[in-house]
Amino acid sequence: MYFCRSETSCMSSNKPLILITNDDGITAPGIRALIEVMNKLGEVYVVAPSSPQSGMGHAITINDTLYCDKVVIDKNAPQVEYSCSGTPADCVKLATREILKRKPDLCVSGINHGSNSSINVIYSGTMSAAIEAGTTGIPSIGFSLLDYSMEADFGPVKKFVKIIVRQALQNGMPKGVVLNVNFPKLAEKDIKGIKVCRQANAHWIENFDKRTNPLGRDYYWLTGEFINEDKGEDTDEWALQQGYVAVVPVQFDLTAYHAITDINSWDL
Amino acid sequence: MYFCRSETSCMSSNKPLILITNDDGITAPGIRALIEVMNKLGEVYVVAPSSPQSGMGHAITINDTLYCDKVVIDKNAPQVEYSCSGTPADCVKLATREILKRKPDLCVSGINHGSNSSINVIYSGTMSAAIEAGTTGIPSIGFSLLDYSMEADFGPVKKFVKIIVRQALQNGMPKGVVLNVNFPKLAEKDIKGIKVCRQANAHWIENFDKRTNPLGRDYYWLTGEFINEDKGEDTDEWALQQGYVAVVPVQFDLTAYHAITDINSWDL
Repeated sequence: MYFCRSETSCMSSNKPLILITNDDGITAPGIRALIEVMNKLGEVYVVAPSSPQSGMGHAITINDTLYCDKVVIDKNAPQVEYSCSGTPADCVKLATREILKRKPDLCVSGINHGSNSSINVIYSGTMSAAIEAGTTGIPSIGFSLLDYSMEADFGPVKKFVKIIVRQALQNGMPKGVVLNVNFPKLAEKDIKGIKVCRQANAHWIENFDKRTNPLGRDYYWLTGEFINEDKGEDTDEWALQQGYVAVVPVQFDLTAYHAITDINSWDL
Repeated sequence: MYFCRSETSCMSSNKPLILITNDDGITAPGIRALIEVMNKLGEVYVVAPSSPQSGMGHAITINDTLYCDKVVIDKNAPQVEYSCSGTPADCVKLATREILKRKPDLCVSGINHGSNSSINVIYSGTMSAAIEAGTTGIPSIGFSLLDYSMEADFGPVKKFVKIIVRQALQNGMPKGVVLNVNFPKLAEKDIKGIKVCRQANAHWIENFDKRTNPLGRDYYWLTGEFINEDKGEDTDEWALQQGYVAVVPVQFDLTAYHAITDINSWDL
């Protein structure tokens, strides 16, 4: 039997150190499901937003203060948890620089309530947390379920989370790459398997809902329609529609290398 | 002489329709400089945040209302301007769906007060606005000056903004690509020219400034150090250090195509 006298000594155990965050907030069912699975695979630290941060993209807090307090949400579970006033990217920065005593072996983000497939990756707080960790060389994975409901059932996807995380811990991650994993909303028996995909070429067409406030001033609610123009059978959207778990390797070197020659032909 | 009886008829002129936004807010000197240059090249609509949005990444407003009001900031200038309560990406969505009567010929964002080179592209509200427009097929460019000061001098870079925008209007933009343009903080005579580059492989190491509030609760300010590990002479960081304007073609298909084979070799 092994006793930890402090968090520092605890972290010197042989278990992989796993950092968990999300963008739906620390009490969201999706992150609780992810914590449950990760507790079986490693020593778990949770540093997650105190409130929902959906659609926050890669926002960081540079003009405001950040609070980050140790909390106990589940008295009977082994993980150590911190609730942070900032964005998902802030959580990763705080965790790696202020809370964890060593570099984590893995960062997992999610499980998001709702899709982060195709172009949604650029708006996603879940994926930004994974990317943030990736920029400092931490193997990282964002998980999302195609069900926006707070009552979403994460049971069917736990098996696949475990498979993917085990493989990531075993194989490591290619340099400069993090994984964007999306799960179809299906019973476990109906999920056909896991496909490695490319990001579908899709975009949103917004439909703003224009209203007038009680003082007579117009305002808008952002709503929109997701348009997938990509007919390819190697995309995340295709895989999800076919009942597969979609895994897209995502990079944060945004250089469009193929366009350098094009732009060099301009008269600059 | 041509008279506009309405904004709709005005937009049927032969001038290119140029949408301008930024992340420092609609009154920032950087966007005022950009408006001045763009007024010489096309018909200008400004839809920009009412308050500073630095570090907002690709955040969008999905759990709150958006206000977007017509404003007059410079009575003697021809542009039409709207001040928006949301993020830079919100501004582009509102502009293209609610304000402009046709798709703009170009979207320009900035000129940002501070660098958006290398990894900063992922945190940048300026670049997210350009990318947002790019996802709907609008040729887009983000401009940034390596001077965070609100008293930054944008005079030396106006000539280069004009050269790049003229070329973009003439040549169009490669599909799925937007430009990330960073200017060194130099006198015009000391700027050596324009280089098309790749994004340097760099990252931030945060140094959180931990303080205690008057009620005894700890909080943090995010500060950090920029670490450029990339010794390449084809990067944006190299070009800027050498006194060049750095132009990086940026893509929003984040798929790490080179890693698909790697991940496919995992036991998934």
